[in-house]
Amino acid sequence: MIIDQRKLPHQFIIEPLCTVDDAIAAIRDMHVRGAGLIGATAGFGMHLAAAQARPGQLADALADGGDRLDKSRPTARNLFYATTMVYEAGNISAENALTQALWIADKDTADSTAIGEYGNELIKPGFRIQTHCNAGWLAFVNFGTALSPIYKSHQSGKEIFVWVDETRPRSQGARLTAFELLSAGIDVTLICDNMAGVVMSKGKVDAVITGCDRVASNGDTANKIGTMSLSILAKYFRIPFYIAAPTPTIDMSASSGEDIPIEERAPEEMTTFRGLRVAPEGIKTFNPAFDVTPAENITAIVTEKKIVYPPFEKNLKTLFERS
Amino acid sequence: MIIDQRKLPHQFIIEPLCTVDDAIAAIRDMHVRGAGLIGATAGFGMHLAAAQARPGQLADALADGGDRLDKSRPTARNLFYATTMVYEAGNISAENALTQALWIADKDTADSTAIGEYGNELIKPGFRIQTHCNAGWLAFVNFGTALSPIYKSHQSGKEIFVWVDETRPRSQGARLTAFELLSAGIDVTLICDNMAGVVMSKGKVDAVITGCDRVASNGDTANKIGTMSLSILAKYFRIPFYIAAPTPTIDMSASSGEDIPIEERAPEEMTTFRGLRVAPEGIKTFNPAFDVTPAENITAIVTEKKIVYPPFEKNLKTLFERS
Repeated sequence: MIIDQRKLPHQFIIEPLCTVDDAIAAIRDMHVRGAGLIGATAGFGMHLAAAQARPGQLADALADGGDRLDKSRPTARNLFYATTMVYEAGNISAENALTQALWIADKDTADSTAIGEYGNELIKPGFRIQTHCNAGWLAFVNFGTALSPIYKSHQSGKEIFVWVDETRPRSQGARLTAFELLSAGIDVTLICDNMAGVVMSKGKVDAVITGCDRVASNGDTANKIGTMSLSILAKYFRIPFYIAAPTPTIDMSASSGEDIPIEERAPEEMTTFRGLRVAPEGIKTFNPAFDVTPAENITAIVTEKKIVYPPFEKNLKTLFERS
Repeated sequence: MIIDQRKLPHQFIIEPLCTVDDAIAAIRDMHVRGAGLIGATAGFGMHLAAAQARPGQLADALADGGDRLDKSRPTARNLFYATTMVYEAGNISAENALTQALWIADKDTADSTAIGEYGNELIKPGFRIQTHCNAGWLAFVNFGTALSPIYKSHQSGKEIFVWVDETRPRSQGARLTAFELLSAGIDVTLICDNMAGVVMSKGKVDAVITGCDRVASNGDTANKIGTMSLSILAKYFRIPFYIAAPTPTIDMSASSGEDIPIEERAPEEMTTFRGLRVAPEGIKTFNPAFDVTPAENITAIVTEKKIVYPPFEKNLKTLFERS
């Protein structure tokens, strides 16, 4: 069961996913989105592929399901992490596929919780935090990455304030993050993406925290379009810029941002709103869903294991060492 | 007669303005917008105030009309320039008010034409130009400021390309600039505001040109929200950043951007789209209509008299010297 996030915050619709094809459509058409939630959904999609395999065709069903899930969206690393893990477990038995899918979902919640605790260390009482897109409980199985430290700080009584970028073209900030933080009783103000620099210039931002879709081994980080520009503005105004991500989002096989595929989405996301046209017919668009923030603009990456500081090339490796 | 720009590019509605109150409402509610067009509309608003004054009450009607027009929007300097000029002329006779209003409108077209010619000198064949908001013929009596050099370059066969930022929250880029350039047969691609940095980072922008609402005597420039961030990104990626403005937009009485009043507009511009809600009910917003680009981020200011380069504090003065 998923929440169809396309109608939020106006309608709260629970949708059953009954087949691997349902899971593929839910990811591709963004009923679910957010790195962790894409991973968890893909894991359960693999479970459905395994559970519904014809007798004797478990391996083929898992391979086919994995291949097709992998094509549903290209950027978030959690997707490929999940399909790979459940493929391997499912090849032992269909029951193992379910166990593995459940483990991925449970680990996502545990990771989010730990990120909340580490990230909370970076937040001082009264901090005014800026975030982009949605990396809260709607983007993960629970709590989220960028918003998890915010929830934790709020619960601990730090009286924080949050600027939310609306995050065009799909308005995940205005629709989802605003909804999450407002519901949690956190002091939040919505701005357009192009106002981010203004609130920074007025000295009204103490830290920027965003989630991400994939971190390369050198620290270059793909996240929702607009994040890179935000990192340049934060640098210009000397504001710390934090990325929050669990290790399944970190892709040590990508040597830099150059190796991260960036999805380009349909023009209608930009030229129309709920079917009403904004821009004139016939206008060309460029609509990348993500951009890459260079490692040099990132103050620290908050993971479930620890806070990683530069040099990322060296320090990200330590996350994957057996201690 | 004005074009009600709120319905563009989907409906092209000509609206008569019959009283000074009509002119005030048209400016305040943004049937017309853009520095030059606000000025021209205010000029004709003053003419209407004068023409409809009760016998013997010309001076009072002009003073009252001017005071109320001045309150319709706070940032564009052309508004105050126009009300002041027509007030002074109108105090001689109502006919003089009309002559002065016509002169302001004609000067606007002449200035736009000259800005097109000077700005064209900065554009090389094949240039990929980025612009923000709308400073084309819809924002002025004709041609515009930022777009006038683009029209001129296009006519001279330079095969230019234009990136248009959609310009939230009112989408003047997506609705108006896209419409203008597409209609003129210019190669144009629409992006969201938060994608501006990405196209710059890929080396796909040769120059940024925007219009503006007010230039202070030190070169600090108020323009549509998002322009300041764009100037920081352009600086980061070493891209020339040009402002186009006629002298009526230059306010030598403002010593810096600190002296320019910045309008804040209604939350609904951001939280709704054509009456449909985007953000949750109860969300707070911050919605400044303009921001101030520091003079240090501006490569040159293209005026109707010449191209002004830094140091602006010294060089803007030369525009107002009697030669």
